[in-house]
Amino acid sequence: MARIATVITDDFEDVEYTDPAKAFKDAGHEVVTIEKEQGKTVKGKQGDANVTIDKAIDDVSPNDFDALFIPGGFSPDQLRADDRFVKFAKHFMDEKKPVFAICHGPQLLITAKTLEGRDVTGFKSIQVDLEYAGGKVQDKEVVVCQNQLVTSRQPDDIPAFIEESKKLLK
Amino acid sequence: MARIATVITDDFEDVEYTDPAKAFKDAGHEVVTIEKEQGKTVKGKQGDANVTIDKAIDDVSPNDFDALFIPGGFSPDQLRADDRFVKFAKHFMDEKKPVFAICHGPQLLITAKTLEGRDVTGFKSIQVDLEYAGGKVQDKEVVVCQNQLVTSRQPDDIPAFIEESKKLLK
Repeated sequence: MARIATVITDDFEDVEYTDPAKAFKDAGHEVVTIEKEQGKTVKGKQGDANVTIDKAIDDVSPNDFDALFIPGGFSPDQLRADDRFVKFAKHFMDEKKPVFAICHGPQLLITAKTLEGRDVTGFKSIQVDLEYAGGKVQDKEVVVCQNQLVTSRQPDDIPAFIEESKKLLK
Repeated sequence: MARIATVITDDFEDVEYTDPAKAFKDAGHEVVTIEKEQGKTVKGKQGDANVTIDKAIDDVSPNDFDALFIPGGFSPDQLRADDRFVKFAKHFMDEKKPVFAICHGPQLLITAKTLEGRDVTGFKSIQVDLEYAGGKVQDKEVVVCQNQLVTSRQPDDIPAFIEESKKLLK
């Protein structure tokens, strides 16, 4: 079963964390939430979900995880202002481990400069950013690139996002 | 005196609106707030400022304004998901009217594809986006490009942002 690093902070899009996290856990995988501070509770932007942080970014190595999950909302933009999260995300892209990013999640992958030539999608507001970053942007509910990178646009896309993500977990 | 279009929605960075808006008004200029809906009250992300919207985007023409002001926070990313605001911002860049964008404000200018070859700065999290968009990014408190575009990074930069912006208003 896979150990999934989940980078998340305040103002994440509630269901973009809760629904995939539940589906991954139900399939027997481990979801480990990572932020600056272990034990902190981060809050969704809709006020529907609170998440307790399992590990501080300083206490984890990307080598200890099989996959990376980046929920959307305003969380990814805050994470990418911190170089530790950018470096952490870059590891999964460089090592071709599965990466699941929804909505604003791909923002972290732009800052890590890992999207050149990759098939990708994201929330409407970041689609021009993705193009400029060298991504081949498709306006579809889910885009799977090289059997490694799974991206989706918005909460409506969650079922397709979960289905394709689970296929890459062993 | 100048008429300044100010595009703003919820979760703007409070002082990045209030301080420049006060300075512009004190200097005799008119600040017109524009969002989707006239009369709506939009709220700052820190909970310190509420702004009543003067005009709906559908009821204004960019031709009626001398300059554009884009406060930061999570407001610009929401505005750029709406093509009407992208088109509105593009007018000021195309017509070389003064544009003042702070923090995440330049995100709207990226989506309008107006930053290629321009000297620019922005909040740390969007600096890679600005580079990819063809901007010549400088990590300085204020960057003035071609006597037309004024950009700053964060609340600390507000005094310099106001000073350089006011120089371009007649």
